[in-house]
Amino acid sequence: MDEAVADALCKTRPAQTMGIADLGCSSGPNTLMVVSEIITKIYDTCSHMGIASPELRVSLNDLPGNDFNAIFVSLPEFYRNLEKETGVGPDGCFISAVAGSFYGRLFPRRSLHLVYSSSSLHWLSSADTMRKQVPPDLCTKAGKHLNKGKIYISKTSPPSVVKAYLSQFQKDFFAFLRSRAAEMVAGGRMLLSFMGRSSPDAAAEVGTHQWELLSQALMSMASEGLIQEEKIDSFNAPYYAPSAEEVANIVEEEGSFIVNHLQGFEIDWDGGPTGNDHGHDHDNNVVNGSENLSRGGQVAKTIRAVVETLVESHFGRDMMDELFRRYAELVDHYFSKTRPKHINLVLSVSRNTIN
Amino acid sequence: MDEAVADALCKTRPAQTMGIADLGCSSGPNTLMVVSEIITKIYDTCSHMGIASPELRVSLNDLPGNDFNAIFVSLPEFYRNLEKETGVGPDGCFISAVAGSFYGRLFPRRSLHLVYSSSSLHWLSSADTMRKQVPPDLCTKAGKHLNKGKIYISKTSPPSVVKAYLSQFQKDFFAFLRSRAAEMVAGGRMLLSFMGRSSPDAAAEVGTHQWELLSQALMSMASEGLIQEEKIDSFNAPYYAPSAEEVANIVEEEGSFIVNHLQGFEIDWDGGPTGNDHGHDHDNNVVNGSENLSRGGQVAKTIRAVVETLVESHFGRDMMDELFRRYAELVDHYFSKTRPKHINLVLSVSRNTIN
Repeated sequence: MDEAVADALCKTRPAQTMGIADLGCSSGPNTLMVVSEIITKIYDTCSHMGIASPELRVSLNDLPGNDFNAIFVSLPEFYRNLEKETGVGPDGCFISAVAGSFYGRLFPRRSLHLVYSSSSLHWLSSADTMRKQVPPDLCTKAGKHLNKGKIYISKTSPPSVVKAYLSQFQKDFFAFLRSRAAEMVAGGRMLLSFMGRSSPDAAAEVGTHQWELLSQALMSMASEGLIQEEKIDSFNAPYYAPSAEEVANIVEEEGSFIVNHLQGFEIDWDGGPTGNDHGHDHDNNVVNGSENLSRGGQVAKTIRAVVETLVESHFGRDMMDELFRRYAELVDHYFSKTRPKHINLVLSVSRNTIN
Repeated sequence: MDEAVADALCKTRPAQTMGIADLGCSSGPNTLMVVSEIITKIYDTCSHMGIASPELRVSLNDLPGNDFNAIFVSLPEFYRNLEKETGVGPDGCFISAVAGSFYGRLFPRRSLHLVYSSSSLHWLSSADTMRKQVPPDLCTKAGKHLNKGKIYISKTSPPSVVKAYLSQFQKDFFAFLRSRAAEMVAGGRMLLSFMGRSSPDAAAEVGTHQWELLSQALMSMASEGLIQEEKIDSFNAPYYAPSAEEVANIVEEEGSFIVNHLQGFEIDWDGGPTGNDHGHDHDNNVVNGSENLSRGGQVAKTIRAVVETLVESHFGRDMMDELFRRYAELVDHYFSKTRPKHINLVLSVSRNTIN
């Protein structure tokens, strides 16, 4: 981040205003935390370099359904704190919101110097509209569902399913890069972090098992007649966890960016990087304020917060409590056998100056 | 509007992106209508001039409490219609939202070519926060309220009240112009429309009587013990309807803008310019869909939509139905004696090139 900020600053000076975008900003308490960190780094760097800070244009982006009102209401306090901490007044930093899919154009040509996106690019473009939740190739023209009994790539999924998912990710990530290429200045920097996988095999357990357990929870409800099996067959999560190689290939193919850094980091399912055991007592329970949830319960709660809108729109609101109760049990059982991990991919690129 | 668009376009060509801002955009069905009209005019003008349209950066501004989510949700349809009507795709027009008070800076330096504001600048800066609803000079240091029994300038208000209101408006409008001066390019155009008055006397009946009747409705409730009179004494609407001369003087004093046009237009209280009697039947009732409200009822409904949040935060939610019922009666009675009118001031200025 430090290097990217310094580099982006160098590209800024002639224009004297610097464009920064957070793509997929969401609306939780973390939204403005990242922005705040970036702004502070910029002011520190300018101070170190002995130059005046440029005026900052900060754009917060997410889909039109995001709760931007919640962000806006917290802005006056954010500006007050920013002024207290950095001395930057209301004429130094201009925050705006842009609603739309980052798989298309969002900003004017050559207007951005620093682009940031966290935990968003593993969602496929089909997640943008609730109407079509699946990569389109997962259903034949005759209406036959290819990924029976599953909601994501699984060990038992036919190769056509893996291919359809990868193909959709390639299309989407290419469109993302092409849009940003138009919007960024030459030499502008982009930092992306999203879910990925360490195995070359997209159907390997690491990277798929969280969805696998949710499929199992759904199927157990289907076996008791609570959910129609056809409903499960026709649902496929608009999500893809790519390998670093797949990502690098698309960046190379698109051609507008140079990779500075690309790496995967292991993260425990229940949060924090591997090796960090703080927050767990000896009985495998997460100690989390007044709640005393099992690790499975905690994971289920987190996952529910992320996927509920999507899952609910397909299976119905009434199913949610029971679904995530069963899911928590399955996760608890899984934790008793192994210590599951996600892979978080971090990609840093520069907009090249050739085309 | 046509002239302002053509003029602003001339200032745009070298930069090839054009900054447009709607200040006080609100969130009703009209919000994107004005933007749509502006965009269409720009594309028509470019087509007439035989030049390529610039990329448009459109900023929608209002206070942080505005319902921006409602605007964002309607954007996808807006873009679809825009493309159908003008051929402008998603890479031609970029809409963003900026939450904050237009009495301070909102945008980077020299970034705006065309600024527009409708029905907003009659609200004083003290309306920005609900905590202090009055121009501060209306209460003495000893805590004595100067505008007893009234909630706006009235015939019986002491001269100090009129002076306090004017002084607050002067400060606010000056700050508005100074902020826009920093944000606009040389030659950029600004179109402002807001409530004003035709009389040089700020206490004249035209321009104050709508608030006068609301004071009367409140006082009638106070006389029955429903509201404490002290509550009315301590409330003063954060609103001011200036004369054209007062506005011109502030523009001249601030010094960054040249007045192209400044004019007041009469508008009937119950909507539409004077002389337009459509929509009224012979019994003085407004024919309005399924509702059959009296003219007073219709005016009360409109005014309630505008001022309720403000009035409610001071007098309490429980009072609102009764207050606006009494208000409707008073307006009906007033209509039986006269045909009341607002003055809508329209001001068109250019950012000068001197400083």
